[in-house]
Amino acid sequence: MRERYKRLIVLTSYLLDHPRIQLSLTELSGILQVAKSTLSEDLMFVKGILESSGRGRVMTQVGVQGGVIYLPNLDRARARNSLQQWAERLMEPERLTADGFLYMTDLLFDPAMVDPLGELLAAPFNKLHVDSVATVETKGIPLAMACARALGTEVVLIRRDSRLSEGSALSINYLSGSSRRIQSMSLSRRALKPGSSVLFVDDFMKAGGTARAASDLLGEFGATVVGVGVLVATREPANKLVDKFWSLLEWQENAPSRVVPSEWANALCEMREEH
Amino acid sequence: MRERYKRLIVLTSYLLDHPRIQLSLTELSGILQVAKSTLSEDLMFVKGILESSGRGRVMTQVGVQGGVIYLPNLDRARARNSLQQWAERLMEPERLTADGFLYMTDLLFDPAMVDPLGELLAAPFNKLHVDSVATVETKGIPLAMACARALGTEVVLIRRDSRLSEGSALSINYLSGSSRRIQSMSLSRRALKPGSSVLFVDDFMKAGGTARAASDLLGEFGATVVGVGVLVATREPANKLVDKFWSLLEWQENAPSRVVPSEWANALCEMREEH
Repeated sequence: MRERYKRLIVLTSYLLDHPRIQLSLTELSGILQVAKSTLSEDLMFVKGILESSGRGRVMTQVGVQGGVIYLPNLDRARARNSLQQWAERLMEPERLTADGFLYMTDLLFDPAMVDPLGELLAAPFNKLHVDSVATVETKGIPLAMACARALGTEVVLIRRDSRLSEGSALSINYLSGSSRRIQSMSLSRRALKPGSSVLFVDDFMKAGGTARAASDLLGEFGATVVGVGVLVATREPANKLVDKFWSLLEWQENAPSRVVPSEWANALCEMREEH
Repeated sequence: MRERYKRLIVLTSYLLDHPRIQLSLTELSGILQVAKSTLSEDLMFVKGILESSGRGRVMTQVGVQGGVIYLPNLDRARARNSLQQWAERLMEPERLTADGFLYMTDLLFDPAMVDPLGELLAAPFNKLHVDSVATVETKGIPLAMACARALGTEVVLIRRDSRLSEGSALSINYLSGSSRRIQSMSLSRRALKPGSSVLFVDDFMKAGGTARAASDLLGEFGATVVGVGVLVATREPANKLVDKFWSLLEWQENAPSRVVPSEWANALCEMREEH
């Protein structure tokens, strides 16, 4: 009996430690040192419990190429707490700089803060096919990485200027909506396969000029932008330069400055996992 | 009996899903819907199995403030595979650009590729007290985030130029060792508490000028750099501008170009977890 407890605990921990990766049954039975038939039985048992308790899904394929993939569910309680915590921290008075910016670099670069919101932002795109998550350097990178991790894909990095180290690149200039300055962005020709479906992610949106320029640049690569997701969007201007975008938090800049979770984000936290 | 199996599987998955976070026993018994006494028994059982199988450690504190923290062990088999995979991928002939650079942005921004090496790079620093991981934008960010996640801390981002959105900053100019150009870097005054212990992480090192300048800048903030870790270092020049650094992979640039795991990285993969 003790042996079975042990097997189930080790199997559970192994699955949880290797999310979204196809594990071969042969390899797994070697690592856990059990016969394949026992492993299959244990797997079905663990699958039943992880799925009924809502922690995640276990997908098994039978046959010679038999394998198993563990897909964690979004932790909605954690996402809800995290949204609340972000809203509170962003309202700390010292975060408003003398120039009217909202300082959030420290939070964006803290894995414990940014990872739960990256998972939340990725959740509605799990059902679509997303080849890559794109972002423009620099501050959106950790959020984009967390999204990509949750979607089992990678990040395509748009640079502010082209880099010798990345070979030839395509560049565009655009008028930044908020600063009214000419800015440029650039993407290495080898960074993206033609015909890719891309989720564009950034930390912040005001007028939406960066998101629109990025969409244009990605379009030049024959990519389709399936969504634009940002951590914080300002309430004003209400009409952004992109048609549609998803923001987790909303910032009302005018005094009293206020940051609140968006209705969309709140609704996401309440949604039930579909099976 | 079935109930106990179920409890143990759900408890294991909950611990694995919340690594390095103090979980209160009261909260945990609510989530798992068991009495605290049963939870304590289950915890001791799961702890024994996760520890004896080498998957991770479970630290429990008794008393009213009683809590539990799960600390995953480094997955050395995965780290070893990952090192090998990086070495192979970096030797793909098309990665050498016409200007003699090694293109690695795609791999650096793929969570499945960069996370295991971030964990490996962080492993020897787990025993030291590290307050923050610092990096200079841009390409080292995902590696630095993975290190910070493994160390339970956050990343301090050194910018190439100072940003209005981050308030007042301290900047330094330095001569880049490899390009012989004057470069600058800048850190927001609010980014780092004085007296911090910092691990500096970057994707690439040739002469070591960036690492040295970053150490100088961090020193201006009263921080102590407890280590310099990079993903790839060139074999030449053998004498870098920093006294000591740790690199996971070594690149011999002269034809035939070759990338191999460093001796240090190989040794790290063989080390046993200390308890």
